[in-house]
Amino acid sequence: MAMPDAVTLVEVGPRDGFQFEQAVVPTHRKLSVIARLVAAGLKQIQVASFVHPEKVPQMADAGSLIRQLPRQDGVVYTALVLNRQGLDRAMASGIAAVEISLSASDSHSRKNAGMAHDDALEKGLRMIDQALSAGLHVRASVQCAFGCVDEGQIPATRIAGIVRRFVEHGVHVLALADTTGMGSPPRIEGVLDAVLPLAGRLPLALHLHDTRGLGLVNLMAALKYGVSIFDTALAGMGGCPFVPGAAGNICTEDTAHLLESLGIHTGVDYRRVGAVSRDMEAFFLKSFPGRMHRVTAFQPPYESR
Amino acid sequence: MAMPDAVTLVEVGPRDGFQFEQAVVPTHRKLSVIARLVAAGLKQIQVASFVHPEKVPQMADAGSLIRQLPRQDGVVYTALVLNRQGLDRAMASGIAAVEISLSASDSHSRKNAGMAHDDALEKGLRMIDQALSAGLHVRASVQCAFGCVDEGQIPATRIAGIVRRFVEHGVHVLALADTTGMGSPPRIEGVLDAVLPLAGRLPLALHLHDTRGLGLVNLMAALKYGVSIFDTALAGMGGCPFVPGAAGNICTEDTAHLLESLGIHTGVDYRRVGAVSRDMEAFFLKSFPGRMHRVTAFQPPYESR
Repeated sequence: MAMPDAVTLVEVGPRDGFQFEQAVVPTHRKLSVIARLVAAGLKQIQVASFVHPEKVPQMADAGSLIRQLPRQDGVVYTALVLNRQGLDRAMASGIAAVEISLSASDSHSRKNAGMAHDDALEKGLRMIDQALSAGLHVRASVQCAFGCVDEGQIPATRIAGIVRRFVEHGVHVLALADTTGMGSPPRIEGVLDAVLPLAGRLPLALHLHDTRGLGLVNLMAALKYGVSIFDTALAGMGGCPFVPGAAGNICTEDTAHLLESLGIHTGVDYRRVGAVSRDMEAFFLKSFPGRMHRVTAFQPPYESR
Repeated sequence: MAMPDAVTLVEVGPRDGFQFEQAVVPTHRKLSVIARLVAAGLKQIQVASFVHPEKVPQMADAGSLIRQLPRQDGVVYTALVLNRQGLDRAMASGIAAVEISLSASDSHSRKNAGMAHDDALEKGLRMIDQALSAGLHVRASVQCAFGCVDEGQIPATRIAGIVRRFVEHGVHVLALADTTGMGSPPRIEGVLDAVLPLAGRLPLALHLHDTRGLGLVNLMAALKYGVSIFDTALAGMGGCPFVPGAAGNICTEDTAHLLESLGIHTGVDYRRVGAVSRDMEAFFLKSFPGRMHRVTAFQPPYESR
C-alpha cells in the first residue's frame, strides 16, 4: 500500500497531556492553548475527558471548557468518555464528537475502568448506540491494542473481534491505542493486517505512546499501511498512570516535522506548536520529551507567538 | 536491499556522552561503566577522544584510561582523534583502533576544529596515512553528513567526494555522522545512494543524533539499505556544543530493544545497559532522553547489576 499524501494529526495534549500532570491548567489557559493550536493548523483537538471530577480534577472543567471553545469552520473538538455518566455529561456539554474507549486487556480494563474487559465491551457498545442515536460523531477506540504490561501481546484476533463489533454498531471512526508503548513495527503490521480488512472504508486512527522510544518508528510502519490519522500531543505530553515508566504521546511538532520531511501534508506549522510547548514547559515547570520545541526555540520568526 | 540479520552497536557513551556533561567522570568510574557495557554484550566501545585536556577536561585521562582497560577477546576499544597532536597521543596510549573525523560543513569545521573544511580534509588524510602506517585500525568519519545548522543540507556529492578520498587512502571503516540530527529518511537515502557504491566492500557505520526525534526512524531507513553498524550511547547521552538544541545519540538500550523486536541480532542485553544508564543518571543528577532504562527499572532480575 502507498504512503498517504496527507495525514490528519489529532491533537490530544489538552486531554491526554493535561490529565497526566498534577497541576491543574485553568480553563482560560486551556482556551488560549487550544486557540493557538488551531492557529497552528490543527483541525481536530481532543479537549477534555468526562471522568470523575474528584478523581481527575484536571478535567473537572470539561463542560464549561467546551461551552467556551472558539468556533471555527473545519475544526472539530472531541471529548473522551469512558462510562455512561461521562457520556451523559458530554452530551449535556453540547460537544459534537466523542471518543468512546475501552481496553483490550482485561487487567488494564480492571485498573483503568474498574471492570472486566467483557463488561467494558458490552457497556461500550451501549454507549456507542446511545451516542449515535443522539446524533454525535463517534470514534471508538481500543486501548492496549499493541500489548499490555501484565498480559503481554494481546492476540490480533481479539483486537479484530472488538473492532468488528464497533463496525457493526456503526461508529464513524476506529482507533487503536498503543497505551503501553509496546508496539513495534512487526506488532503494528500484525494488528493492521487483522483490522484493516474489517474497517473497510471506515477511517482508522492510531494513538501511539513513545514509552519505548518507538513512537515515530511505529508511525512509519503504519504510514506504509496507508494509515493517515494519528493522535499526537504538543511537546510529547501524556502518559498513563497504570503503565510503569510510561512516556508521552508522540509529539505533535516532531510528527509534523517528520511528515513534512517525507513530503506528506499535515497543514500543521510545527514552529507554532513548538512555541506553545515551550510555554507549557514554563507553566508546568518541567521538560517534556518532545524535541522540535527545543530546536525551533532557535528559529526567531515564531519566537513570540 | 534486505535488512541485515545482525547489527553491530558501537557504544559511544563514554566518549560522546561523558564529553558533553560538565561533571568529569573519574577514571575508575569510567572503567567500571566500560566493564559493565562489555558484560552487557557490547563488542565495540569508543572510550575517549584525544582533544586538548584543558579545553575538554572530561577526556583528560584518555591515555591513562586506555592503559587500564579490561582486555577481553572480541572487544575492540576505539578513540576519537581530530588533529595530529591527538593522533600522537592516541598512538602513545597503545590503543589499536582510532576514528579520524572531519566535518563536511565548512562553518561547523571552523567552529569545531578551528579550520576550514578543505584544510581539515587534507590534514585528516595525512593523519589517516600516519595511523595506517603505524598499523592502527582506522575508521574515517564525516560529520554533518546529513545537514548543518548554518549551511543546510550538504550536497550528497560533497559527502561522496570526501568518502572517495577516505577509500583511496585505505581506511578500514567508513562512517557518516548526523551531527545535527537533521537527517530524515529521504536525506539518509539520498546520501546512502551516493556513498554506498563508493564504499564497495568497506563497512559503513552511521552515527545518528536524536535532535529532532528522528534517530530511530533514520536507523530504520538505513537498515533497509543494509547498513549494519550504528553508534549508540547508553541512556541516549551526548550532544554537540555547536548545535543549538542538540539532543544525544540514539540510545543503546532503545536501539537494541528495537532491533530485537525486528528479529535482528545485536548480542546486547538492553536490560543490563539500562541498569548502567540509571546509575549514570544518579551520577550526573539528571535525566537522559533514552527510554528503555526507565521501562526496565520495573524488570527486577537485572535491577542490581
